[in-house]
Amino acid sequence: MVIHRENEPIKNLVFDADSHHGVEFARMNADETWMQLAIEEAKKGIGLTSPNPAVGAVIVKNGQMLGKGWHTRAGMPHAEREAIANVLENHSAKAMMDATIYVTLEPCSTQGRTPPCTQGILDAGISRVVYGAEDPNPAHAGVAKRLLESQGLEVTVGVENEACLKLIRGFSKVQRSGLPWVMLKSAISLDGRITRPPGESQWLTSPASREMVQRLRFESDAIITGGNTFRIDNPALTLRSEALSAKTQPWRMVITRGKREELPPEHQLFTDVYADRTLVQESGDLLAALKQLAERGCQSVMVEAGGTLMAAFLEAKLVDEVAIFYAPLLTGGPDYGFAGLAEDISLRNSEFTQIGDDLLLRALVG
Amino acid sequence: MVIHRENEPIKNLVFDADSHHGVEFARMNADETWMQLAIEEAKKGIGLTSPNPAVGAVIVKNGQMLGKGWHTRAGMPHAEREAIANVLENHSAKAMMDATIYVTLEPCSTQGRTPPCTQGILDAGISRVVYGAEDPNPAHAGVAKRLLESQGLEVTVGVENEACLKLIRGFSKVQRSGLPWVMLKSAISLDGRITRPPGESQWLTSPASREMVQRLRFESDAIITGGNTFRIDNPALTLRSEALSAKTQPWRMVITRGKREELPPEHQLFTDVYADRTLVQESGDLLAALKQLAERGCQSVMVEAGGTLMAAFLEAKLVDEVAIFYAPLLTGGPDYGFAGLAEDISLRNSEFTQIGDDLLLRALVG
Repeated sequence: MVIHRENEPIKNLVFDADSHHGVEFARMNADETWMQLAIEEAKKGIGLTSPNPAVGAVIVKNGQMLGKGWHTRAGMPHAEREAIANVLENHSAKAMMDATIYVTLEPCSTQGRTPPCTQGILDAGISRVVYGAEDPNPAHAGVAKRLLESQGLEVTVGVENEACLKLIRGFSKVQRSGLPWVMLKSAISLDGRITRPPGESQWLTSPASREMVQRLRFESDAIITGGNTFRIDNPALTLRSEALSAKTQPWRMVITRGKREELPPEHQLFTDVYADRTLVQESGDLLAALKQLAERGCQSVMVEAGGTLMAAFLEAKLVDEVAIFYAPLLTGGPDYGFAGLAEDISLRNSEFTQIGDDLLLRALVG
Repeated sequence: MVIHRENEPIKNLVFDADSHHGVEFARMNADETWMQLAIEEAKKGIGLTSPNPAVGAVIVKNGQMLGKGWHTRAGMPHAEREAIANVLENHSAKAMMDATIYVTLEPCSTQGRTPPCTQGILDAGISRVVYGAEDPNPAHAGVAKRLLESQGLEVTVGVENEACLKLIRGFSKVQRSGLPWVMLKSAISLDGRITRPPGESQWLTSPASREMVQRLRFESDAIITGGNTFRIDNPALTLRSEALSAKTQPWRMVITRGKREELPPEHQLFTDVYADRTLVQESGDLLAALKQLAERGCQSVMVEAGGTLMAAFLEAKLVDEVAIFYAPLLTGGPDYGFAGLAEDISLRNSEFTQIGDDLLLRALVG
């Protein structure tokens, strides 16, 4: 379990952690330091790159960063090419000779919508390649290493591996299983309830938490809700307009036990300007819903629903992660956030973070 | 909200907080520093001193601590007398001339089971008295200040007031209302349930949390449970033997809606070696239960019960504090920790602490 405080300064693990041995420690961990910068680059793409993964790269020579880049969108240049282009904006092509490139994911070695990055690296004259995670497709994993080494480059694999794998967890899951990464989001009171007694404000969580939900939506390719929530709350499930300048409205999917025509046709999801981004899964078929979303390029989806659909997803073992906002009260309201759940669900890697007056739990399931 | 990490080092607020201005800051806050030491002394008595409050004292001269002491048990010397005696163990009586005494609570000025501490302070030749909290009995508040000042001593009141008030919150509540401080303790899953599905282990929380429950029991003068828990779980509600070398077994009170003779007579609370420390409150009368305990000298009681009694205490506005242990799982078990609660209960001063794999919430109610 990890507990974070709000606004906790991000620690520079290399230079702050152990100040007496600063110099030696920094030299030992130069690869990790540069990879952390590449990870920071990659993070800029989270939520934007599907069906591609978020990837970041930095190019370094003699302890100096020459350039950096991240993959901004499917069809646009990969992070390696962005970083190479960034170097060339400020330096001559010669500067790149014998440089090292740090990239969060194994460079692609096949022609896709863009030419293979391994070729770009070779063309640039880079002499060392460090990457954090192997390609999750077993047919591609390690191909870049063999190819680059055969051309005389030094290749190091697995630096900051865990963080680099986290960046591509949705992409990996689709590769592996044909299903997207599924996060359940709930907001409950400290006694587990999703509602407050009649007559009280129906807001549970603070503005800061609602802001964070916007961020989670931004990082998702689709938002799933249930037929009951659709009928009763008539939710919009939209991103705010600022976010929509960077990203298409995520898919909105209603999973109903009945048929589409039984849902109220006048509700927002069917009538607002993003109505073409609304999907319906009939017969409560969770697996079909997720497959349908994966086929549309979704690698990361969020479920925002009531206790019954939440429980169904958990019991079907289709959930990878939970994000539960706890509001600082015991509500005594009539409905529980995980009503209907009748199985033990273990959580791993729990992280608690203070968000305004609320507490956010993020944990992996199973 | 405050979030604590497990094993977080206790910060020395004076010397660590603001290192650039260390010297100046330390001088400004010498009173706070010494009072913090007095508070540390007082803490040793928490759970042991009822019906008296926990009090600590240190005696200081020329920036050096000459002695310290805490009130160990009703009928034993007060903290001030313990500190004076401690000085005399290592120094001559002359050393105390013109010393300062820091004491967490206003010294008593009346003859009780022990002679008044104000007289002891005068006899010792102490010239300055600093105390953190006034006597919560309005008839006594400020009397020590006036008396000591009339004898030419310098008196400072209110240093580390909040922490000093916290030390005596049970004592104050009894003085003010005739009722003890009431803490509800619960252990629930992250979906708010108190049980796991049939067939799973019925332990929710980790050994570290169960250890912490022992500590909470140690700090309590009585443990309250409900008739249902008594019948179904047959709990012992005992302190471990190590703790019992320092403290009498807290009172154990069963609140039943029916009559005592309807409870199973063979259950532990009625038959174990502490059976004389078991009380029963009939007719589910919560107020009578608390009054009965206050009359027996209890200033701090803990409720360890099921959802119905928990809810009854909360709805009757008889709860001062909650301590809720969250186990890191969604259980889907049949019973909720706060079942029966049908009112919004706000929490203040929430503090979350990691305890093993669990999360402990402590918060004030209302």
